Amino acid sequence: MLSQVGAVRDYLLGLQRRITGAMGEVDGSRFTPDAWTKAPDEPLQGDGVTMILEQGSVFERAGCGFSHVRGAKLPPSATQHRPHLVGAPFEAAGVSLVFHPRNPMVPTVHMNVRMLAATPAQGEPVFWFGGGMDLTPYYGFEEDAVHFHTVCRDALAPFGDDKYPRFKQWCDDYFFLKHRGEQRGIGGIFYDDLSELGFEGGFALMRSVGDAFLSAYAPILQRRKEETFGAREREFQLYRRGRYVEFNLVWDRGTHFGLQSGGRTESILMSMPPQASWAYQFTPEPGSREAELYEKFIVRRDWL
Amino acid sequence: MLSQVGAVRDYLLGLQRRITGAMGEVDGSRFTPDAWTKAPDEPLQGDGVTMILEQGSVFERAGCGFSHVRGAKLPPSATQHRPHLVGAPFEAAGVSLVFHPRNPMVPTVHMNVRMLAATPAQGEPVFWFGGGMDLTPYYGFEEDAVHFHTVCRDALAPFGDDKYPRFKQWCDDYFFLKHRGEQRGIGGIFYDDLSELGFEGGFALMRSVGDAFLSAYAPILQRRKEETFGAREREFQLYRRGRYVEFNLVWDRGTHFGLQSGGRTESILMSMPPQASWAYQFTPEPGSREAELYEKFIVRRDWL
Repeated sequence: MLSQVGAVRDYLLGLQRRITGAMGEVDGSRFTPDAWTKAPDEPLQGDGVTMILEQGSVFERAGCGFSHVRGAKLPPSATQHRPHLVGAPFEAAGVSLVFHPRNPMVPTVHMNVRMLAATPAQGEPVFWFGGGMDLTPYYGFEEDAVHFHTVCRDALAPFGDDKYPRFKQWCDDYFFLKHRGEQRGIGGIFYDDLSELGFEGGFALMRSVGDAFLSAYAPILQRRKEETFGAREREFQLYRRGRYVEFNLVWDRGTHFGLQSGGRTESILMSMPPQASWAYQFTPEPGSREAELYEKFIVRRDWL
Repeated sequence: MLSQVGAVRDYLLGLQRRITGAMGEVDGSRFTPDAWTKAPDEPLQGDGVTMILEQGSVFERAGCGFSHVRGAKLPPSATQHRPHLVGAPFEAAGVSLVFHPRNPMVPTVHMNVRMLAATPAQGEPVFWFGGGMDLTPYYGFEEDAVHFHTVCRDALAPFGDDKYPRFKQWCDDYFFLKHRGEQRGIGGIFYDDLSELGFEGGFALMRSVGDAFLSAYAPILQRRKEETFGAREREFQLYRRGRYVEFNLVWDRGTHFGLQSGGRTESILMSMPPQASWAYQFTPEPGSREAELYEKFIVRRDWL
């Protein structure tokens, strides 16, 4: 293991511990850890810890996974534009989370930070970073959206003023349900395959985004988790969660590719909602709060 | 429109009417028709009728769609092994259904019959047929599985003794969740791209499979729809329906390709269950009826 990867691994395990600790405290339940190690005959080697909280008082299903895998040879798709890395050994480490709260007034949230390191036979190791966070409300609150995007922007500010607008747009582009013509939520930030900052810069970015997660989400969770709701709001939440399922299974590259290529199914699918529903051509009542979500929130919009 | 396509269209519309009529009667509600026509600027032209019954007394969600589309040029994927058809105009027509019953003792069922016709500039039109039906129980009943497979076998008998074993295996191969190492259900029959029987034979096969649907499913529905069940069975049904979602969105070529390529989303997703759930590493209690489903039913097995 490269010393840089060791440092990233330590950071990620600490991040997972901090986030699940804080969120478990808000819920009043603990996340259950499930540690796994890849069997020696599997194509990738490595280990991970999936932490899950199900049927809590605040979270209906919340998953936060750490994984660290290594392979003997980078897959061809990763080396298309980098011929000197063909066949290089690699390591990948990351933390990924999706929290599905019980109360429909609290948005679902997703965050991920990851690193890929390749060690060519000749020359220095190469590091790429990816990640981001995005918010998927069921009922829209302007102040929540502005708060979330403000924290995202501030987390990226030390890395240049171009980063937030670029990563915000990248997020809007990525979390889009083409078959519905809908954004998944109000967006946030997303970046992938980033090597331009080198290891030090990329790792600093990872820490800045990872560390910002609780500041971005916890205040929204705190102010919405006691809001009252009824059967109508619950029904709409379940219906909208169907979109989350559709996005993740149809469009999300990590999920779709992971399932198709023999990844660890239960860890990949910790992003699935605890419950979701479908109804034929549901259309929200004009002027309702449900209609407002479609018109004002899950559209491309500058929040800051 | 080729005269053969006209005959197929008439058959399919009649089949949809018969099935939704009979099933609506069992439910005590009517299927609601939603007729659609492709806009002139869309890549494919055509029309269809999606019939839906939601929140009925027997069916929680049941969809049965007819569609008939035509395009100016066969897509390259369809002409790889048929160079004389490159760029030929084509028509495709089919009926597809998925019924999700309310009672967990009644299996979910899927049936599809379809035809593709291409008209090359030189030579005769070419016809391919595809289809089949398969059953997805939540609680297993041997007699239901044997009945369903018997009707499938009998429907194929006039077309040669090789057809049932071949199409049964094709079904097991197709309706397999690779990421779970699980069959979707107890199988049935499946065939695709069949041109070996010519138009007359292929159309006769379509009619035999389509006409067999009610004989295959209605008796199972009748004998299970009043069975008692409780919260445990309902919960297991919702959990297993999650697998139906996973199969359709991740592995089903029609669904995945349809959504990615701009098909009519709500018609494609009429196969989604009304409600589904996910739980981390759920394992049925040894010796329970839930465990029995995994051990004796959703495995490859000769039912006849």
